[in-house]
Amino acid sequence: MDVTADGNEHYVIGVDYGTLSGRAVVVRVRDGKELGSGVFEYPHAVITEALPADLADEPAGPAVRLPGEWALQVPQDYRDVLRHAVPAAVRDAGIDPAAVVGIATDFTACTMVPVKADGTPLNELPGFARRPHAYVKLWRHHAAQEQADRINALAAERGESWLPRYGGLISSEWEFAKGLQLLEEDPGAYAAMDHWVEAADWIVWQLCGNYVRNACTAGYKGIYQDGAYPSVEFLASLNPGFKDFVDTKLAHTIGRLGDAAGYLTAEAAGWTGLPAGIAVAVGNVDAHVTAPAARAVEPGQLVAIMGTSTCHVMNGSELREVPGMCGVVDGGIVDGLWGYEAGQSGVGDIFGWFTKYGVPPEYHAAAEAAGLGIHEYLTELASTQEIGEHGLISLDWHSGNRSVLVDHELSGVIVGQTLATRPEDIYRALLEATAFGTRTIVDAFRDAGVPVKEFIVAGGLLKNTLLMQIYADIMGLPLSTIGSTQGPALGSAIHAAVAAGEYPDIREAAAAMGSEPGAVYTPIPENVAAYEELFREYRTLHDYFGRGANEVMHRLKKIQRNASKTLLTAGVSA
Amino acid sequence: MDVTADGNEHYVIGVDYGTLSGRAVVVRVRDGKELGSGVFEYPHAVITEALPADLADEPAGPAVRLPGEWALQVPQDYRDVLRHAVPAAVRDAGIDPAAVVGIATDFTACTMVPVKADGTPLNELPGFARRPHAYVKLWRHHAAQEQADRINALAAERGESWLPRYGGLISSEWEFAKGLQLLEEDPGAYAAMDHWVEAADWIVWQLCGNYVRNACTAGYKGIYQDGAYPSVEFLASLNPGFKDFVDTKLAHTIGRLGDAAGYLTAEAAGWTGLPAGIAVAVGNVDAHVTAPAARAVEPGQLVAIMGTSTCHVMNGSELREVPGMCGVVDGGIVDGLWGYEAGQSGVGDIFGWFTKYGVPPEYHAAAEAAGLGIHEYLTELASTQEIGEHGLISLDWHSGNRSVLVDHELSGVIVGQTLATRPEDIYRALLEATAFGTRTIVDAFRDAGVPVKEFIVAGGLLKNTLLMQIYADIMGLPLSTIGSTQGPALGSAIHAAVAAGEYPDIREAAAAMGSEPGAVYTPIPENVAAYEELFREYRTLHDYFGRGANEVMHRLKKIQRNASKTLLTAGVSA
Repeated sequence: MDVTADGNEHYVIGVDYGTLSGRAVVVRVRDGKELGSGVFEYPHAVITEALPADLADEPAGPAVRLPGEWALQVPQDYRDVLRHAVPAAVRDAGIDPAAVVGIATDFTACTMVPVKADGTPLNELPGFARRPHAYVKLWRHHAAQEQADRINALAAERGESWLPRYGGLISSEWEFAKGLQLLEEDPGAYAAMDHWVEAADWIVWQLCGNYVRNACTAGYKGIYQDGAYPSVEFLASLNPGFKDFVDTKLAHTIGRLGDAAGYLTAEAAGWTGLPAGIAVAVGNVDAHVTAPAARAVEPGQLVAIMGTSTCHVMNGSELREVPGMCGVVDGGIVDGLWGYEAGQSGVGDIFGWFTKYGVPPEYHAAAEAAGLGIHEYLTELASTQEIGEHGLISLDWHSGNRSVLVDHELSGVIVGQTLATRPEDIYRALLEATAFGTRTIVDAFRDAGVPVKEFIVAGGLLKNTLLMQIYADIMGLPLSTIGSTQGPALGSAIHAAVAAGEYPDIREAAAAMGSEPGAVYTPIPENVAAYEELFREYRTLHDYFGRGANEVMHRLKKIQRNASKTLLTAGVSA
Repeated sequence: MDVTADGNEHYVIGVDYGTLSGRAVVVRVRDGKELGSGVFEYPHAVITEALPADLADEPAGPAVRLPGEWALQVPQDYRDVLRHAVPAAVRDAGIDPAAVVGIATDFTACTMVPVKADGTPLNELPGFARRPHAYVKLWRHHAAQEQADRINALAAERGESWLPRYGGLISSEWEFAKGLQLLEEDPGAYAAMDHWVEAADWIVWQLCGNYVRNACTAGYKGIYQDGAYPSVEFLASLNPGFKDFVDTKLAHTIGRLGDAAGYLTAEAAGWTGLPAGIAVAVGNVDAHVTAPAARAVEPGQLVAIMGTSTCHVMNGSELREVPGMCGVVDGGIVDGLWGYEAGQSGVGDIFGWFTKYGVPPEYHAAAEAAGLGIHEYLTELASTQEIGEHGLISLDWHSGNRSVLVDHELSGVIVGQTLATRPEDIYRALLEATAFGTRTIVDAFRDAGVPVKEFIVAGGLLKNTLLMQIYADIMGLPLSTIGSTQGPALGSAIHAAVAAGEYPDIREAAAAMGSEPGAVYTPIPENVAAYEELFREYRTLHDYFGRGANEVMHRLKKIQRNASKTLLTAGVSA
């Protein structure tokens, strides 16, 4: 395809909406070259303690405090990314904005916005600024666990056919649990809401004026399977008031990934400085757009986006039910294939927590003296060890377990510490623990008949070469890394190019625009054998603590919550 | 008894031989007042890497390196304590040495010295300075585990009646395992050795010229029960060459605690500056002499000497077999009662390890700014928490488990860590873990019909008031602390007074000379209830990891040893 048939270069914009900021990248359609970027940090970041005071439309009252496990965001912050990051990226690229032919976005998920019929978020309505349920519920809002538990119990009892597609468990992070929480805790806000919208689709709506639901989140987060949502009977059994949730709050058309949801409105053209009328792609999710950016859209190519957490996506030519997966969705990554998703809720977060709270002054001083960051310094020390020399096994559940146990109440474990245990030992054991967690996911895919043939890493952690070799050795699989540092934004740009008609589909666009591979790591046979032994220990502990033999983690969380309540009460009465 | 019948004050000297130094204290016989002290640090400390070069009697060769788990000492260091610490204590007290009527010593145990018939240690013989087996094997020499395993297996198979007296397991730290290792690894040194002597008795031999074996270590460490050692048949089955071990290497008389082993020789008088001919008490062990120092020699009074490790001693009027105890010995603490001993191999050591390797710079800086040590600072932070608020459970096996599992290959565990876990949370969980370990011992005593009625703490950790309250709450027992900071040396001094005939027996001497009690801690009922719940979790994990359900700790140690060997080999060939 001659993408410069008119004699001019064409460009597309990819915008990656992360947890704390949005990043726009300008990409050349012809070859995927990244020419410039811009970032905008959300002014309200993540709201976990109290609602922001600057949004109140009434005389200021006492701060509205949030219970534990809540995580909200402000929709206006997302619009402001379009107003700041996109023009900045265009300026940085030094291109003529008139040569931009399309824009696409990817978003965190499941992140839900309650809106009116015209797309206005509830929190922007008069009288709603002080109601927590009027705001965006961020993916890591974990306060709907009770609702998720009821959804799972009822679905298992009724033998709902969709349940196995999600590994047998619907997450508290997802659309139905969060929607049910909204109904049950603020019925007035629920009644006032016309649509319960993924932020991934809401931002597209802001760009093109159409509400088109993307096939990816509809399937992964919205329990949309075989052309239908959960039944009226199921919803009514959960709560009579929830009976018509699908019909009244989720009404929409489904858009295929890579299609255009519409065309840039004059208003959005004003925000972005881009030409009105260019293609706006159907919304998508950060992890899922990274697969084409890594040229990894063939069955058996598993892409792991490794950062604070890890998301795994892989295409398959057939539908299989894989226990403990996040989900399998027809056309969930690219149209025409089954998209599988899995995840680890804590990875880089765990390493960061350890370096912040578990490493003594001498180590920090030595790192500084060597001109190294603390992660690099610990990695350097750990890299001289033989496998198993530290004598430790750790479970990587400091932030719960997403796959394959789907249990946010699990927690970390370390076994084998002695008086001779040093920080680099624990650091290496934590690196290994996350690799064992990944291996558990890869094994589950294999056992369900969806073998992983190649492991491709994107995200910030690919810089750690020890970590990459450990992953290759523990999985016994060749591991390659993506060449681009902007995987998701590049992936969105690829979607924009397809939506603009520059390529016929995502697979062809990925071949032309996807990133060149970065470093490649080959498993070392003796390391593979040595880790096999340690992995068996991991699996025994994994099953013991994670599959009901000893529910100590759940009980500790309960004791902890009760103790914190005692403390709160004591504080209040004092 | 009028201890100043001759019109002059009488004094005694107690000398406490610890792991790294010897401490002498001058005590007034009339009331136990401590008048002065002196300390001498062993020049060779603990030898774990290579034999010291300064003792070689031949041209220096390459350093003689020691395998892992070895821990040796040098007998001359013990004599030097007599030459330095005793005169220093007398000077510090400002007394006339002529008024000293007796001296007694206590020692680490089981610490073994191989000697010739005249008491000369093998390492002092020509040609032996470069043979590791010619040196003292310190209590924490753990390289005889293989021998201990064989002793236990054979004793269980033969149904030896003495085995239950040691909770069913003979430790690798003890006399028979260490002696068998000596025979099997250096038969020449074994053949050259005339006596295999507890250091506790060797130092008394140096003072008075007589080899008298103390009833305490003969029973606790030497498997001397009901007037006999293990049989010739048993020894021959272990190793034909070990058949006459008892007859040829252990020949001696048994001395009762508090009796005089003999009288100070002219040579020892020269070393110490004390009058020749004064009473020298039968040797004893640091923990055991502390019971009279704490006035805690009645049945049901459990004395815990809490420092880097904890030793528990308690008298009982009857013989019971308590599973997992270190031992029960007739007259093992005071003559006429059954002395029970238990222990935790890591306590303060674990806290120290954590503060050294697991606490970040900000905490050290804040502690310094507040004028606190890091232990005090963490304790202050931890003390504001509700029970269970940290969400953690830890097992206190970083240094193995002495009672009730008797397994040095066990290791530490922590369950429940999340990204919100802070150093003070882990610190508190470790404090609690050691208290759960103590509770497990107290429960084992109760279940065997030897109830603990009162818990008395000696040793350095009694300063930590949070720790003391946690122990009282977790055990549900009143806890008192010893008033003296020199418990063992005071206890030895009490034995010296009895040996000198100043009191008729240890119980009377303890009543007159024992320390006034220090602080008392009463269990708080709501804390007792809250900890009961956490203790159940501890016990479940304790039994899971410690009683064979999951032998992961043993396998990790084995993997670790093999990995270290690989590393060593790699280093050698490089």
